[in-house]
Amino acid sequence: MSELYAVRRTRLRDRAAGAGSVAALISRPPNVRYLTGCAPSGAALLLGPGEDILICGRPLSGDPSEGRPADDVRVSVLPTRGGDPVVAGADLAAKAGADTLAVEEHHLTVSRHRALSQVAPRLRLTDLACAVEAQRLVKDDDEIACLRIAAEITDHALGELLESILVGRTERHLALELERRLVDHGADGPAFPTSVAAGQNAGRPGHLPTDRRVEEGDFLSVGLGANYRGYRCEIGRTFVIGTTPADWQIELYDLVFAAQRAGREALAPGVECREVDRVTRHLLEAAGYREGLGPWTGHGVGLEIDEDPQLSPAAMGKLDACVPVTVDPGVHLPGRGGVRIDDTLVVRSEADGGPELLTITTKELLAL
Amino acid sequence: MSELYAVRRTRLRDRAAGAGSVAALISRPPNVRYLTGCAPSGAALLLGPGEDILICGRPLSGDPSEGRPADDVRVSVLPTRGGDPVVAGADLAAKAGADTLAVEEHHLTVSRHRALSQVAPRLRLTDLACAVEAQRLVKDDDEIACLRIAAEITDHALGELLESILVGRTERHLALELERRLVDHGADGPAFPTSVAAGQNAGRPGHLPTDRRVEEGDFLSVGLGANYRGYRCEIGRTFVIGTTPADWQIELYDLVFAAQRAGREALAPGVECREVDRVTRHLLEAAGYREGLGPWTGHGVGLEIDEDPQLSPAAMGKLDACVPVTVDPGVHLPGRGGVRIDDTLVVRSEADGGPELLTITTKELLAL
Repeated sequence: MSELYAVRRTRLRDRAAGAGSVAALISRPPNVRYLTGCAPSGAALLLGPGEDILICGRPLSGDPSEGRPADDVRVSVLPTRGGDPVVAGADLAAKAGADTLAVEEHHLTVSRHRALSQVAPRLRLTDLACAVEAQRLVKDDDEIACLRIAAEITDHALGELLESILVGRTERHLALELERRLVDHGADGPAFPTSVAAGQNAGRPGHLPTDRRVEEGDFLSVGLGANYRGYRCEIGRTFVIGTTPADWQIELYDLVFAAQRAGREALAPGVECREVDRVTRHLLEAAGYREGLGPWTGHGVGLEIDEDPQLSPAAMGKLDACVPVTVDPGVHLPGRGGVRIDDTLVVRSEADGGPELLTITTKELLAL
Repeated sequence: MSELYAVRRTRLRDRAAGAGSVAALISRPPNVRYLTGCAPSGAALLLGPGEDILICGRPLSGDPSEGRPADDVRVSVLPTRGGDPVVAGADLAAKAGADTLAVEEHHLTVSRHRALSQVAPRLRLTDLACAVEAQRLVKDDDEIACLRIAAEITDHALGELLESILVGRTERHLALELERRLVDHGADGPAFPTSVAAGQNAGRPGHLPTDRRVEEGDFLSVGLGANYRGYRCEIGRTFVIGTTPADWQIELYDLVFAAQRAGREALAPGVECREVDRVTRHLLEAAGYREGLGPWTGHGVGLEIDEDPQLSPAAMGKLDACVPVTVDPGVHLPGRGGVRIDDTLVVRSEADGGPELLTITTKELLAL
């Protein structure tokens, strides 16, 4: 594994050097983890000019969800607890003779950035921008393996819930049970706050669980995902409770299903991100649901649950092979409820069998 | 309630005006909530020059944990979803004729700050610094009432756990059960990730639950708290499992208990924050546990689980009446385990009966 992280850091160092900085200071936690295997809260990674140093404000907890640092990264714990590893990193860079330091201006606050200038006044601070995020876009085999396991865990947890009694239980309880099952099956934790939405809440984007109890005839939509070794996947399904579905429920479900399938089938290397969004969104808009559609119909996943690429009308750029994305359209009818269907897939060329579906829980409309 | 928020905003506006800014843009979520009663993720509050506007990137979810905006705050939802309310706020301020805008430089990233300058080039951006945090230090009756309820919920959840079988269960399961019970009793959620630490993990500061199972003879330390209407409290207790405690366990427990009591009894208006830390820390250091003591022995709580004041050797400033703080010393012996005892209290004058203990679960050493 360690070579893997060394390769990633070398690529980044070359990139920073090309932009005129012999040294870079990475502070965004998912970026620190991508480059070192480990992201203690508040830690910062100093790349070059000398060795690579992971600067921590406190000793490593050894907690698995924090990860483990690659062998070839020196871990330095600040003597004064409560100190800022980012500031210490700038100080180290200056003492190591760097004249320029590339920092993540999209993560550092104005105050911290100022503290950097004060501790190392002769150091010229430049913007690393989203160089690490860009590097993270295409996943390697180890990353995809982690996402595959995360998806297995997620399918497991959801499958068990479907076998239990749902009527009469609250959204909150079901969400907590799903999160417990994720952990039971080996997740470091939930990839994001689990969403359980019953009745008129069903299909609401980003709905947080309430005390609403599941009732006969409800739509029930759930959104969950496992975090496995930092890698996060996402699944969303909608069910009908108890009775056979009403006609409007079947119609709405079939529509969202068709849109989601269209999006999945559009995934291929070289395809414009906004084109995937268009084919998904188009079906929903054509059916009269333009209002209340979310700003995107899918997004990248990895060390963050919502990362590039974004599948939205304004998205620039094209898909690449080995980019994991969600396709997650939904329709919510205020006062009635709605449907959301969400999968995590990996973009693959036709030659490689086309898009690889990671979340395999059935998408037929189940009456539970 | 609305007047309450109006009063807070007026105080802040006066303060900003005194510093030369007729307009202020608040973006730190707990600060936005303090001033409006509501903190949709990513929202920003524009204070003056005209009306007060809560700018949101998406419609309010109506989720209770998000809060509800005061009646006299205008809520403005950005037409283009995915836009940045902070940038929109700067634009509004400029259009409203402001020449200066105070922003929270300790929260805005360098990139967002730059985006503000670009959208409103003639607007002079100043630093509001931690003006809102300073205003939040002393709590009013409504805030303390919320903390009291949060503490009741927390004592309830912990009390129920103590009545259940613990041996053989994992730290992870116990933590998830505690969080479920918090929600059952009316919490919007946990105030922070629940910590359950068994055996040699016991007493480790910030320990995250693992698959370690509780065994006979273990020390078991738990740390949890409820989030009630945004207000967060904290309790920490340590128990012995099954058998009667070993001598070393009793000695260590009595020591930490004595230190925690000394800290609690030192709480009074006008007392130096570092003095409270000193009397607590002193007992532990005198017993030979200087190494491995945390950087602080207590901290403020409120809309954040860890806010000012800090009870640490380097802390400046004195305590005030109506400031809620934790007193949470602990000792961890690597390889053996340890003890942590943590309460949330409100500083009160002697005339008002002295420190008000919010978390009332017993602190005698229970063998469960």
